[in-house]
Amino acid sequence: MGKKVTIRDIARMAGVSVTTVSQVLNGKGKRFSKTTREKIMKLRDQYQYVPDFHARSLIMKGSINTIGVLVPNVSESFFGTFVEGVQQVARQEKLIPLIFSANREPKLEQEYLEQMVERSIDGLIIASARMTTEMINQALSNRDIPYILFDRNYDQQGARVLTDDYHGGQLAAQHLLALGHTKMLFLGVKNITENFKQRMAGFQETINAQEINFDEDHNLLKADLSKDGGYQMARPVIESGATAVFTANDEVAIGLMRGLREQGVRVPEDISVIGYDDIILDEYVYPQLTTIHQPIFKLGVGATEILLNKINHPDAEPEQVEHFPVKLIARQSTGKCQQN
Amino acid sequence: MGKKVTIRDIARMAGVSVTTVSQVLNGKGKRFSKTTREKIMKLRDQYQYVPDFHARSLIMKGSINTIGVLVPNVSESFFGTFVEGVQQVARQEKLIPLIFSANREPKLEQEYLEQMVERSIDGLIIASARMTTEMINQALSNRDIPYILFDRNYDQQGARVLTDDYHGGQLAAQHLLALGHTKMLFLGVKNITENFKQRMAGFQETINAQEINFDEDHNLLKADLSKDGGYQMARPVIESGATAVFTANDEVAIGLMRGLREQGVRVPEDISVIGYDDIILDEYVYPQLTTIHQPIFKLGVGATEILLNKINHPDAEPEQVEHFPVKLIARQSTGKCQQN
Repeated sequence: MGKKVTIRDIARMAGVSVTTVSQVLNGKGKRFSKTTREKIMKLRDQYQYVPDFHARSLIMKGSINTIGVLVPNVSESFFGTFVEGVQQVARQEKLIPLIFSANREPKLEQEYLEQMVERSIDGLIIASARMTTEMINQALSNRDIPYILFDRNYDQQGARVLTDDYHGGQLAAQHLLALGHTKMLFLGVKNITENFKQRMAGFQETINAQEINFDEDHNLLKADLSKDGGYQMARPVIESGATAVFTANDEVAIGLMRGLREQGVRVPEDISVIGYDDIILDEYVYPQLTTIHQPIFKLGVGATEILLNKINHPDAEPEQVEHFPVKLIARQSTGKCQQN
Repeated sequence: MGKKVTIRDIARMAGVSVTTVSQVLNGKGKRFSKTTREKIMKLRDQYQYVPDFHARSLIMKGSINTIGVLVPNVSESFFGTFVEGVQQVARQEKLIPLIFSANREPKLEQEYLEQMVERSIDGLIIASARMTTEMINQALSNRDIPYILFDRNYDQQGARVLTDDYHGGQLAAQHLLALGHTKMLFLGVKNITENFKQRMAGFQETINAQEINFDEDHNLLKADLSKDGGYQMARPVIESGATAVFTANDEVAIGLMRGLREQGVRVPEDISVIGYDDIILDEYVYPQLTTIHQPIFKLGVGATEILLNKINHPDAEPEQVEHFPVKLIARQSTGKCQQN
């Protein structure tokens, strides 16, 4: 053969991810099965694989190993954790992740993407709900830079990591229905994007299936997508007479809970609150927040692995799409409906 | 003259910051006095100043307007807010901030710095407590890249934004003493850096001045610098018999409060908790956290402005050092000592 075996070859032959191989070879593979570890060690010996920074450099197009990570807002806990997942893979692969935070402004996002292209970046992870495939391609000047989409826009084409927002909405509705709630709200966002629409749709259709009325005119309120946004909506939520609220994400839920507390409304005795994402904060607020869990860290890891795969196999078809499950995490902010 | 007037010339002539000029000229200057606004408008007319992206590009060395921002951990609220301050100036000045998060690992920090140099960055903001001036210069290959230091290491030389950690410690002690506490703890960190030492020193010396015993052997506990780190220390804190705890930062305080709650200890009735930083979260936790306020957003703005100044006036001496005040924010997590 003559061609040097790469970590990715080992991963492919072992049927595991690059991260798994990396962790096992770095002695950090205790969480993997003995079979997996032995398989990897055997392949390493068989092909005399040596992890080596410079060898890995050559795998990449050109010698600069940089990936750009465009996130809406780096100060949100969600994206902080996502970036940590990216960083874990990046460290193992000796990649440098450059983080760009564009505050959910499509124009700024496009500018930043253009700048990344000029900086001859090797690949991109794009978390933007608002950019269309067309905008992205334009920003990349139709150059052949591999990118992965994350979060939010179902209309975009391309490789991506996905979670099922519709199912997340269903889970939230099932949980509140089981607790006896019939007057429910969705506290959505002002500039609604596809992922939030899906959460709302799953929520609404599950409720309607129980022949309980729930429609956009009566059961939807809109907040800014932030803690302060949720906080500002405490009054309208109270005035709606709802006994349970499903919020667009955990930040909004945490803000809402603060607002309710300041108005003397008890959570969950008076109003149950359920969020979305499962950010670290959920366990530090009081009451601890019930939520729909997304595997945020793993999404960061997964996006980076798919991107690496794409950089190394640019012609692979079709585009890789990886699904990550969501699940309900019941904590203290939801309880039985006490209004009869 | 012939030389085109820049936004910085206008700022200098008006005796205000570049940001102020930028905001006034962009119609966002309502928060400034009428006198300031009129002075800026007059200078603009007098020198026929036209804000222009390409003109601004020329001000910078070379045509790529990029600043690297090295932070310990982008998922901490503190650095999220700091980066937002950087971004505000960056947007106005058409700079692209590249954010690097190195998890407080000096070796990784050094690698990232080296990578930024290779990427012909125009300037750097370095928030690292652990890197010495020597390490930084080595990473920059002694190239003449302007940089600003932020946070933490008093031994470093160079332009910087500073807050007075010693005074912050004094304020915390004065607050707790005024509430009648005599059994106090400092919940510090395992890998202590100069900024935390200063906080501890200000705290300790203020307490000792009241002839109350406080020393490292009896009144210092060490946590990991995170919410989880504080959470893990709830038991040792309770066992110490202290009625008040001053924590290294707010993250640690928020974790500690969760731990105390789970142990059935009431804050502030049983134990008062005071943090450090004033991150946004402080108002969303329960009870709301008393803390020492650092103007985090302004620190980001200030660091970026000084960096720009340094890029444009590389020979200016001495290095610019800007001080930002700290202050006590009394909220609900501290109260009168109820133990007699």
